[in-house]
Amino acid sequence: MSRRVTVEKAAEILTTVDNIVILTHQFPDGDTLGSAFALCRALQTFGKKVRVLCHDVIPEKYEYMTAAVPQPEFEPLFVCAVDVADSKLLGESLQKYTDKVELCIDHHGSHREFEKQLLLNADMGATAMLIYQVITAMGVTVDAVMADCLYTGIATDTGCFKYSNTTPLTHRMAAELMEAGANAETINRAMFDIKSRARVSLEQMALQSIAFYDNGRSAFMQITEEMIQASGANENDMEGLSPLPRQIEGVWVGVMLRQKADGDYKISVRTGTHADASAICGLLGGGGHPRAAGCTLSGTAEQVIATVQKAIHQAVPRIVDR
Amino acid sequence: MSRRVTVEKAAEILTTVDNIVILTHQFPDGDTLGSAFALCRALQTFGKKVRVLCHDVIPEKYEYMTAAVPQPEFEPLFVCAVDVADSKLLGESLQKYTDKVELCIDHHGSHREFEKQLLLNADMGATAMLIYQVITAMGVTVDAVMADCLYTGIATDTGCFKYSNTTPLTHRMAAELMEAGANAETINRAMFDIKSRARVSLEQMALQSIAFYDNGRSAFMQITEEMIQASGANENDMEGLSPLPRQIEGVWVGVMLRQKADGDYKISVRTGTHADASAICGLLGGGGHPRAAGCTLSGTAEQVIATVQKAIHQAVPRIVDR
Repeated sequence: MSRRVTVEKAAEILTTVDNIVILTHQFPDGDTLGSAFALCRALQTFGKKVRVLCHDVIPEKYEYMTAAVPQPEFEPLFVCAVDVADSKLLGESLQKYTDKVELCIDHHGSHREFEKQLLLNADMGATAMLIYQVITAMGVTVDAVMADCLYTGIATDTGCFKYSNTTPLTHRMAAELMEAGANAETINRAMFDIKSRARVSLEQMALQSIAFYDNGRSAFMQITEEMIQASGANENDMEGLSPLPRQIEGVWVGVMLRQKADGDYKISVRTGTHADASAICGLLGGGGHPRAAGCTLSGTAEQVIATVQKAIHQAVPRIVDR
Repeated sequence: MSRRVTVEKAAEILTTVDNIVILTHQFPDGDTLGSAFALCRALQTFGKKVRVLCHDVIPEKYEYMTAAVPQPEFEPLFVCAVDVADSKLLGESLQKYTDKVELCIDHHGSHREFEKQLLLNADMGATAMLIYQVITAMGVTVDAVMADCLYTGIATDTGCFKYSNTTPLTHRMAAELMEAGANAETINRAMFDIKSRARVSLEQMALQSIAFYDNGRSAFMQITEEMIQASGANENDMEGLSPLPRQIEGVWVGVMLRQKADGDYKISVRTGTHADASAICGLLGGGGHPRAAGCTLSGTAEQVIATVQKAIHQAVPRIVDR
């Protein structure tokens, strides 16, 4: 059982320690990386030794973060995790830190406690919003680099202010971060606009694979190894495909099946106002947010689709109404 | 030559007149409609007779505006235009008002003067931002309906806060409008998320049509009558296709050719930081914004593509560099 701490307490803890490693979740996204590098930079202004650790190689498009914040080598004395909803999500190479995490800062309502102290606020659309508050509470002035990192976290986790987790506070923080020097245009283009030619062709195939159930209220889209081969898509090209099925008119629950190398399927569920994605994935050993959640399932595509449908019907009985 | 007026002066003018018609541009979008219905509602709070006029049938997805603001019949005594960059854009049925427009409120840098008095601010990402200031200057409290209309205008013209025309002020206004009761989640889903099945299939065909020139720095996408027939797409299904070619990695200039019923091509040009879309379309008798502009051309697709390429090379010489 973790001890809950406030923004002020988290700030106080971090200012009093040194030799800090900041852990991100695997398959890193803009929020875990933006949160980690902003906090890393802020703590470095005190002259502390701080670095960020990630199980995976950090995608090139985040180079404006990785290149701007020095990553010294040292013996860790304090372990912090950001945007990590479950110790399993640290990834294999960071599992060894699971029982050593002193402080975790997260915004996932489905957070599974593994840390000693926890700053959790599920009303925040992004962990980066909490990090912004912690940095401010530490008395650090947000510079252009921190602003880029924090803006990235907030923009990516709110679908560029489009999703239901966007609040007036989200917009006010974005305004302040732009004034602090965040290059919003460049970041938005890199995060939301740019698609490789491989991605464009993968997207076509994915759209063609969409199958509808429950009178068109649920839609399943598949990303197979064959599609990935044929399009020449890489890991980065996969990002942001999961919302596509839910974007089709009349769809309450949009599901993306992605076949992993080991044959298992990574399931991403997206919902509108009619259904709770985390409830659906909770029934399948996963979790996430009300509008966006995920889980992993084994079996054939047909078996996996049937399993997910069963969970949908259980979590959203109204979806089968005529 | 129009007389330029300030926000305060525009507010003063509008409060002193009655029997007001508010003109929108043809092929109406979220900004011209959001601006018109918000202003209409605000002026109605004074007990004035006000209505909105549009050459085209207003798409169903804007029903939350049209249904919320009564549209009385009366003899117009004052004509106002919003988000209309050129009198030609009023559309055929509203041409008769061209010389009768007392006040126009617009944010297009390419604005071609036709009105007696003009409130123009090209630094505003949306005309709705100016309307918000005018409504406030009139001393009217923004209610939930006005907030929905104004949020729609701001969100649609800034690509949901993604485009380069988004400023800290844009975000602050969005925050205030959400607090005033704007249903951001519902509006965003309707404006940016929902795609009909016809749209999804049209989008696939459009992506397949993309051709690259200038070493992949320019990309041309075609929407033909055949594609529209085959997909069963309607007018609403066309919206928001024009940015697709520019979103491909390495593309400086993205061009969409849309074949109109009369055989002419409606050209939409989108650019990143390397090129000026309004400069390109200016050479072709069109206009718009630095990142998004348009024009109309006659001829075969091949001829039209060649003409646009010539304009691109003239406006963006660096695009042909090796």
